[in-house]
Amino acid sequence: MKLSKVAKAVNGTFVGDGEAEIHAMASLLEAREGDVSFLANQKYAAQMKDTKATAVLVHADYEGECPATLIRVEDPNKAFASLAPIFGPKPVVREPGIHATAVIGEGVTLGKNVYIGPYTVIEDGASIGDGTIIDGLVFIAQHVTIGRDCHLYPQVNIRESCVLGDRVILHAGVKIGTDGYGYTVEIGAKGPVITKVPQVGIVEIGNDVEIGSNTCIDRARFGRTRVGDCVKIDNLVQVGHNVQIAPFVGIIAQAGIAGSAKIESGALIWSQAGVSGHLTVHERAQVAPQAGVKEDVPEGEYVAGTPAIPKRKFAEGLLLPRLVDKLKRKVADLEAKVKALEIK
Amino acid sequence: MKLSKVAKAVNGTFVGDGEAEIHAMASLLEAREGDVSFLANQKYAAQMKDTKATAVLVHADYEGECPATLIRVEDPNKAFASLAPIFGPKPVVREPGIHATAVIGEGVTLGKNVYIGPYTVIEDGASIGDGTIIDGLVFIAQHVTIGRDCHLYPQVNIRESCVLGDRVILHAGVKIGTDGYGYTVEIGAKGPVITKVPQVGIVEIGNDVEIGSNTCIDRARFGRTRVGDCVKIDNLVQVGHNVQIAPFVGIIAQAGIAGSAKIESGALIWSQAGVSGHLTVHERAQVAPQAGVKEDVPEGEYVAGTPAIPKRKFAEGLLLPRLVDKLKRKVADLEAKVKALEIK
Amino acid sequence: MKLSKVAKAVNGTFVGDGEAEIHAMASLLEAREGDVSFLANQKYAAQMKDTKATAVLVHADYEGECPATLIRVEDPNKAFASLAPIFGPKPVVREPGIHATAVIGEGVTLGKNVYIGPYTVIEDGASIGDGTIIDGLVFIAQHVTIGRDCHLYPQVNIRESCVLGDRVILHAGVKIGTDGYGYTVEIGAKGPVITKVPQVGIVEIGNDVEIGSNTCIDRARFGRTRVGDCVKIDNLVQVGHNVQIAPFVGIIAQAGIAGSAKIESGALIWSQAGVSGHLTVHERAQVAPQAGVKEDVPEGEYVAGTPAIPKRKFAEGLLLPRLVDKLKRKVADLEAKVKALEIK
Repeated sequence: MKLSKVAKAVNGTFVGDGEAEIHAMASLLEAREGDVSFLANQKYAAQMKDTKATAVLVHADYEGECPATLIRVEDPNKAFASLAPIFGPKPVVREPGIHATAVIGEGVTLGKNVYIGPYTVIEDGASIGDGTIIDGLVFIAQHVTIGRDCHLYPQVNIRESCVLGDRVILHAGVKIGTDGYGYTVEIGAKGPVITKVPQVGIVEIGNDVEIGSNTCIDRARFGRTRVGDCVKIDNLVQVGHNVQIAPFVGIIAQAGIAGSAKIESGALIWSQAGVSGHLTVHERAQVAPQAGVKEDVPEGEYVAGTPAIPKRKFAEGLLLPRLVDKLKRKVADLEAKVKALEIK
Repeated sequence: MKLSKVAKAVNGTFVGDGEAEIHAMASLLEAREGDVSFLANQKYAAQMKDTKATAVLVHADYEGECPATLIRVEDPNKAFASLAPIFGPKPVVREPGIHATAVIGEGVTLGKNVYIGPYTVIEDGASIGDGTIIDGLVFIAQHVTIGRDCHLYPQVNIRESCVLGDRVILHAGVKIGTDGYGYTVEIGAKGPVITKVPQVGIVEIGNDVEIGSNTCIDRARFGRTRVGDCVKIDNLVQVGHNVQIAPFVGIIAQAGIAGSAKIESGALIWSQAGVSGHLTVHERAQVAPQAGVKEDVPEGEYVAGTPAIPKRKFAEGLLLPRLVDKLKRKVADLEAKVKALEIK
Repeated sequence: MKLSKVAKAVNGTFVGDGEAEIHAMASLLEAREGDVSFLANQKYAAQMKDTKATAVLVHADYEGECPATLIRVEDPNKAFASLAPIFGPKPVVREPGIHATAVIGEGVTLGKNVYIGPYTVIEDGASIGDGTIIDGLVFIAQHVTIGRDCHLYPQVNIRESCVLGDRVILHAGVKIGTDGYGYTVEIGAKGPVITKVPQVGIVEIGNDVEIGSNTCIDRARFGRTRVGDCVKIDNLVQVGHNVQIAPFVGIIAQAGIAGSAKIESGALIWSQAGVSGHLTVHERAQVAPQAGVKEDVPEGEYVAGTPAIPKRKFAEGLLLPRLVDKLKRKVADLEAKVKALEIK
């Protein structure tokens, strides 16, 4: 698409080569020739002079330097987003229908306008709500209940009797309802005897939940592992058995929540953090990346480190080397002075 | 099921509304109206007064307060477990048989009473023992050997020539026998030349092993990556090439064992911990959550931190800020005193 | 194969039982009876006296003790590698061809000598280059482009419009092009309103890239998440949206790179490390296992700890407890001396 046409599409004005070809959209840093980019947040203004973009959407009154042709608009953020249908990848459309190769068990309830992809298996007694899209190669076990307008991507597995609400998105490879990790160990005559504790509960997921690729959520030992409404979980996260996640919680990539922990409403667990079993992260608390929570986190607190402590204390700990160095010099100084006094 | 009927099923006595409907079982904390719960461990006694359960199984002589109807039994733990067949999800039964859509290669040996699910692929020369269940969408590559009474859940992949013992459980998405991470780097005239080191070994898994969802176990560079009898591995764990895991080891979620490390019998690697390559974690040692092992861990030792040190030392390290603060005050005090002495 | 025949195959000489049967190859430590092993690196010489191998390949002039029969050769490393075709597992050969059960969409371009395995789905408009192998149970979404001589293992998923170069290896369960984690949060009258930010970019992977099992690479919010030529990524790694990975980067198991971070050429991110969003790890820098990068890492620097600091400083921090202990004793000593002076 010619630059002039892009400018027209966003109701913008420009001075420069309207014939230049625009092929794609990208951020200032990532942009290459033929890309259109944008500057909405002044934080990124320093990137303007080095961008390799061919065109950049800016505020009408922008004044900085930039090698690209500037397209002046009222709201660069909005204007840029409006280009997605033109330059973004073609959106995938799933027309309702059951692929001929899908295996649908006995007593399965399928809502209206459902899409089931190739080689997906839905076992006996499962129920799929209206408008839900289940891509290919998904495995839904017996008696699973899925709400309406959900989207399950390829290679998802949902174990028997688990329950999903409405508008749930499960990305590729998500595993719901795996047996939790639980054993009893007895020391027998011939050495330890390890017995699996039956995991006879389920996973219950609320409405408007999104779960990232290859994340695992274990079924409860009994009762339910629960993921509340509007919870957003990233890729490769581990959620143990009987964990209770309240609505509006965020869990970032590779974090882990051990069995029976409770994450209260509005809490944020950052990437690679861990929460030990049976603990509570209270409302709106945050757990820093890589932190290891070993005791309850109070409401609104931000904790960091392993074991996790309030962020302010953690920051003080980082100053320790400097503090000790200072003390060392003071002690050396004192030693000299005391020696001098002793000689006197 | 009516509460009175539940009480009868567990041989218990109660005072209260026998007509109340019980639908499910749950822990004291997770329970909602219509749930039956239990108190076996006095640690949870404080949860009794706030539980939302409709009924709670307690010891015959329990005396605390509780809004729920108490059902008094001899052994609440056992009684509760006995309710699982009634209130737990319907167990999945796999009748022996090969699904019509399973692709079975040439020279495959199938034992008696084997179940192979839809769209599962078993390549040439593989061997599956008696009574083993392989769910749908599993991929078993050439010349894999699987013992008897195993259960492989959907979307498991086992690469060529790997060997599994008897009664092995692989949860959904487990990947066995992936190439280990190994390259040689040479600096050529045009920059670095990176060459893949062939990974021509296998993975050999013993009897009674259970491996959690999306866990990965790499094949050996040569020889065998070994997982001993009765090893229990949780979800999202990484086991590198040539790792040797002795019997009765436990590895909790998201932990990682780097190439050629050796984990001896009875050791426990807690969640998100890491063990560097070529090291040994000796018998019955434990590695704390998020710890990073950089040298061998002695028999029976419990290590924590990165780099991992004995737990006692790690705990001392946590007291450092307080210790330094105390020292700081002492030094200030000394400075004042020395100054006074100097003036004299 | 008889030991004498093994010796002949590697042009070696031996004194001992040439009739002994050799079944497999293994390292000195892992070897069992019937195995052939080797000693190429003197670092492992101490393992010679305890090896359970039946035969060991050694340098012609090796002099140490060993219970196994020694086979003397010029280059033990090379000789050992040459045995892989004999003792290693049978290599899997994929004859070109499209399995009858593969679902190939409309407008798909397939190169010459392509292999597509059973139950693999390739959606409309995708393009697969010459000589590429796609194993069974793989899902390739619409308009994906894959280069030549690639190998995709089972249960890989590639979302719509993503692009792979030539000679790319994706191990089992890799997920390419998942939506990045992005939401806007507004506080509405009835509580928070969380809106998904559309993720309309793609993932673009260069040539000669290898990616380990169950690793996830998110598509860009817009533009491209980029993985450069010759990048080698291990298992269970998370790469966030819009991350830019330059050529020749290595990322070890379970590490995570947050959104829009930039990893420059030759950098190495070790296992379980994390890099926060929007940061740059500069050329040839290294991030230690479990380190947490919170600010840019300079060229060639090696950082460790959370937050990550130069390795030398991190090592100094580890000496702090000893330093504080020494200071404590000095202060006690000073206190005594000052008291003595005051009394005088």
